[in-house]
Amino acid sequence: MALDIVSRSKCFGGTQTTYRHASAETRCDMRFSVFAPPHAEREAVPVVWFLSGLTCTEENFTVKAGAQRVAAERGLMLIAPDTSPRGEGVPGDPAGSYDFGFGAGFYVDATQAPWSTNYRMRSWLEHELPGLVGRELPVDMMRQGIMGHSMGGHGALTLALREPSRFASVSAFAPIASPMNCSWGEKAFTRYLGPNRTMWRTYDACALIEDGARLPGLLVDQGTADGFLAAQLKPELLEAACEAARMPLTLRRQDGYDHSYFFIAGFIADHLRWHAERLG
Amino acid sequence: MALDIVSRSKCFGGTQTTYRHASAETRCDMRFSVFAPPHAEREAVPVVWFLSGLTCTEENFTVKAGAQRVAAERGLMLIAPDTSPRGEGVPGDPAGSYDFGFGAGFYVDATQAPWSTNYRMRSWLEHELPGLVGRELPVDMMRQGIMGHSMGGHGALTLALREPSRFASVSAFAPIASPMNCSWGEKAFTRYLGPNRTMWRTYDACALIEDGARLPGLLVDQGTADGFLAAQLKPELLEAACEAARMPLTLRRQDGYDHSYFFIAGFIADHLRWHAERLG
Repeated sequence: MALDIVSRSKCFGGTQTTYRHASAETRCDMRFSVFAPPHAEREAVPVVWFLSGLTCTEENFTVKAGAQRVAAERGLMLIAPDTSPRGEGVPGDPAGSYDFGFGAGFYVDATQAPWSTNYRMRSWLEHELPGLVGRELPVDMMRQGIMGHSMGGHGALTLALREPSRFASVSAFAPIASPMNCSWGEKAFTRYLGPNRTMWRTYDACALIEDGARLPGLLVDQGTADGFLAAQLKPELLEAACEAARMPLTLRRQDGYDHSYFFIAGFIADHLRWHAERLG
Repeated sequence: MALDIVSRSKCFGGTQTTYRHASAETRCDMRFSVFAPPHAEREAVPVVWFLSGLTCTEENFTVKAGAQRVAAERGLMLIAPDTSPRGEGVPGDPAGSYDFGFGAGFYVDATQAPWSTNYRMRSWLEHELPGLVGRELPVDMMRQGIMGHSMGGHGALTLALREPSRFASVSAFAPIASPMNCSWGEKAFTRYLGPNRTMWRTYDACALIEDGARLPGLLVDQGTADGFLAAQLKPELLEAACEAARMPLTLRRQDGYDHSYFFIAGFIADHLRWHAERLG
């Protein structure tokens, strides 16, 4: 098939697999990890996508979040894609910074050279990868949810706001609420998308809501001891955008939690239940 | 205090901390990670030690096993020590192999040069570290359990068999049942302890049982798809030793599971309940 299996382990009665495929969009091999619950041996199951944050690969969520237990109970497939194109011939950040290039694709289709050739994470996640997954894996693509962390929280929110009919459920951990209004986002968008900020709005959750996009509901957890809270994440901007648009937002400020996977692990069960209830 | 905090995160209402201290036994800085459940803010709590396998540090169990959820519910402290001395001036394996030297202390006190200066993992774990933990952390040292994985399963079994009065509960994931009878153990013991196999018996779970050591009970999980099962782990030797000694052993062969933390994560809750029931 079009998917290579890099590794596979049995886990909570299901299987945890790392896949690799040659992506036409990013013009390089891309990896993603899939937890298939025991139910997937008998029937097509709903899927929850998890988009990861800066520096991550498909592995971080898979080994650190402890998500498989509840996903196995509730019959959810989990898919965690890598966060950027990678490999020989793919340009990274010449400065080697952690917040641009490899591990920092920001879920956009870059329009600026040299990034525009490979950095097509939006098209990979909106078209190529779901097409491949729908053909090759035992998944019911009529029942999809999406969540993410930090840069991946931004990714989950913007994918869902642009295509609300695809996702029955959306949630995020410590998302970048408005990349147009923080240094991480401004740096990445300037390089990937160019200086015209109007072109950035389709990649900014708050701008999408201001411009009319809506979700029927949204769960966000944010740790109050998160070191990126004030300068980068700014949940108050999402709160204001949702309030102005009368869009339902469940924003939980979790006292004393930081930006790590120890925070995610503590609340992943709540999120998976949120998705399971909406995915039927 | 005698402990430096390397990092700390809130997790399941408790705290996950990496500590460092200057060890007199190993003559280098040693790290260990501690999960303190919420109960530890009010009272001294029981502790379960987790000894890790080859190549691991204090981090692997901490981020991959998903143990904190149940430990938080049951009020258990979890302590995961590093697996060897490390750092400048500490000899590693000149050949750079994964199964000797750094990350491969085998929980022995080495008697052979050049290892004998630093590789004193037995004394660190039997005396120095419990002393430090008992003085500095909110732990009830009258209620201790121990478990481990692979090389660390061997470590847990041998520590407990040598000092059964210290540990009210013992369990293991895919332990090396008899290091005297596998190539991992023979290589390490020859170098750390010298060629006289009589000196190895105090570090071999099966030999300790043959020589009269007993535990009131023991839970072992072993995946049937574990790549190290036949050549290194040999649970059948432990089974035979326990049967000959009429020592109760609950050995569960878990169909299709491998040697990874995906296996551990699936059964850690069972193990923590086993410990919690015996630690009161």
